[in-house]
Amino acid sequence: MKIEYDCIPCICRQVLEASRMAVGEDRKIIRDILNEYARMIPDITDDDSAPQIVTRIQNYIKQKAGKDDIYLEFKEKNIKAAQQYYPTIEKLVKSSEDPLLSALIMSAVGNSIDAGVSLNVDIEDNVKRAIENGFSHSDYPFFKEQLSNANSILIIADNAGEAVFDKLLIQELLKYKVNLTYAVRDKPILNDVTMKEAKNIGIDRYCSLISSGCDTPGIVLKNASKEFLQIFSNADIIISKGQGNLEGLLDESKPIFYLLKIKCHVIAKRLNGGLKTGDFVFKYY
Amino acid sequence: MKIEYDCIPCICRQVLEASRMAVGEDRKIIRDILNEYARMIPDITDDDSAPQIVTRIQNYIKQKAGKDDIYLEFKEKNIKAAQQYYPTIEKLVKSSEDPLLSALIMSAVGNSIDAGVSLNVDIEDNVKRAIENGFSHSDYPFFKEQLSNANSILIIADNAGEAVFDKLLIQELLKYKVNLTYAVRDKPILNDVTMKEAKNIGIDRYCSLISSGCDTPGIVLKNASKEFLQIFSNADIIISKGQGNLEGLLDESKPIFYLLKIKCHVIAKRLNGGLKTGDFVFKYY
Repeated sequence: MKIEYDCIPCICRQVLEASRMAVGEDRKIIRDILNEYARMIPDITDDDSAPQIVTRIQNYIKQKAGKDDIYLEFKEKNIKAAQQYYPTIEKLVKSSEDPLLSALIMSAVGNSIDAGVSLNVDIEDNVKRAIENGFSHSDYPFFKEQLSNANSILIIADNAGEAVFDKLLIQELLKYKVNLTYAVRDKPILNDVTMKEAKNIGIDRYCSLISSGCDTPGIVLKNASKEFLQIFSNADIIISKGQGNLEGLLDESKPIFYLLKIKCHVIAKRLNGGLKTGDFVFKYY
Repeated sequence: MKIEYDCIPCICRQVLEASRMAVGEDRKIIRDILNEYARMIPDITDDDSAPQIVTRIQNYIKQKAGKDDIYLEFKEKNIKAAQQYYPTIEKLVKSSEDPLLSALIMSAVGNSIDAGVSLNVDIEDNVKRAIENGFSHSDYPFFKEQLSNANSILIIADNAGEAVFDKLLIQELLKYKVNLTYAVRDKPILNDVTMKEAKNIGIDRYCSLISSGCDTPGIVLKNASKEFLQIFSNADIIISKGQGNLEGLLDESKPIFYLLKIKCHVIAKRLNGGLKTGDFVFKYY
């Protein structure tokens, strides 16, 4: 998906946040990073995607901070928070009327529960409401139909925290006797899940765990590994999680089930159907 | 108040909005404007204030769009919306326990009611709740004390829509037999009120109406007119409305009553006292 002008100020905000996470309150380095992003803006072409631009400036931040993984601590906090709620969510999903549907919703809800969320938030109540209200757009009936004939599924993962909840989705999908692969980022980028976190969470105990080969915060097929591309081509069902992967894949010809929480009006508009920021979506496209 | 790094992405978002308002969907011009702002970023010094930077890039937008007042239509819509609610608010203020306090709250609430607000919003309910909940920080008792000995008051105005509600505040203040001056922007900038709108609203029927001499979206004293500076120096009480004026005045030595709705965490933090975005504030500083 080509970059929209709305992404330019939004990435600027993200750059500032990441800079602070990387170097604290070192105003000189933060200023240098903001200036570097400003210098990039006139060179952004209409063919660039937001994940590509983000990777470019995030690599600059890593270099200035002398760190490979700026979001390391943040990811660890997210995982810990998600793990804290896991037993409650597991119970809710397994006792719900349709555990697979509930697991899909929880997999999308997962990226709301991050380290920034106040500990006072009634997470149980939030999760219950999400299961009750469900998706704003749902292609679940068609998904079930596909699933009954599928031999292989590829899940393209997103953030580290929500990967904890993805374990529930994986467990539900495995009941359908499918070959399941979970693909993570090749290198640390934003708070996205890499091989390291996925193993710590224990995803590899349930299914095949591979790197996509991409260091962008979202799949860009031309940068993906051969292994990933082979699984991508052959998978009967692909579930793409989050906005970054959607931005990378939406213009590809292969139809995909997009599972995400909409986080900005650009994506809401792009998906049509009267969707809005905050909506949970499970869309075949 | 010196610019914070958080203002850089925020101004970028505002530039995009203003560009669209100015030239519609002309991607080439919008792109040119975004690039111009990007080029400005490395030149922003720690001594610049946000209103100064905003003026610089807004002037560029005006030039590219060939328009003196990009927000003209938007301001007219805001005024119309405010006028529609004026009779209800007038009734609520005048029948409230303390009409002056209610008029102060309404003057701050005013900038929530703009053309972007859905017509389905129950404005009466919103306004009632604002009067009930009042200010998150209030120096009203001290203000009343000052008012009992004051001969002259200067109100430094903010947006065009809320100027409609300022008429109620002016009426309540005039009951204290004070000399009242209402100062507006010298030239159109953002949706701020200028002489033209203030006259259309009829402010001049109640009190002296002057231009501040500033074309920045907030007073910058070094650019203000002699007339304004004289009134500013001699006024027994100054009420500064909105964030832009606060940013221009907070570092000045003369104490001022700041009347505003907090619209970002930078200002919330700068005002201390556990304030947050969305709070209504009446603070002597």
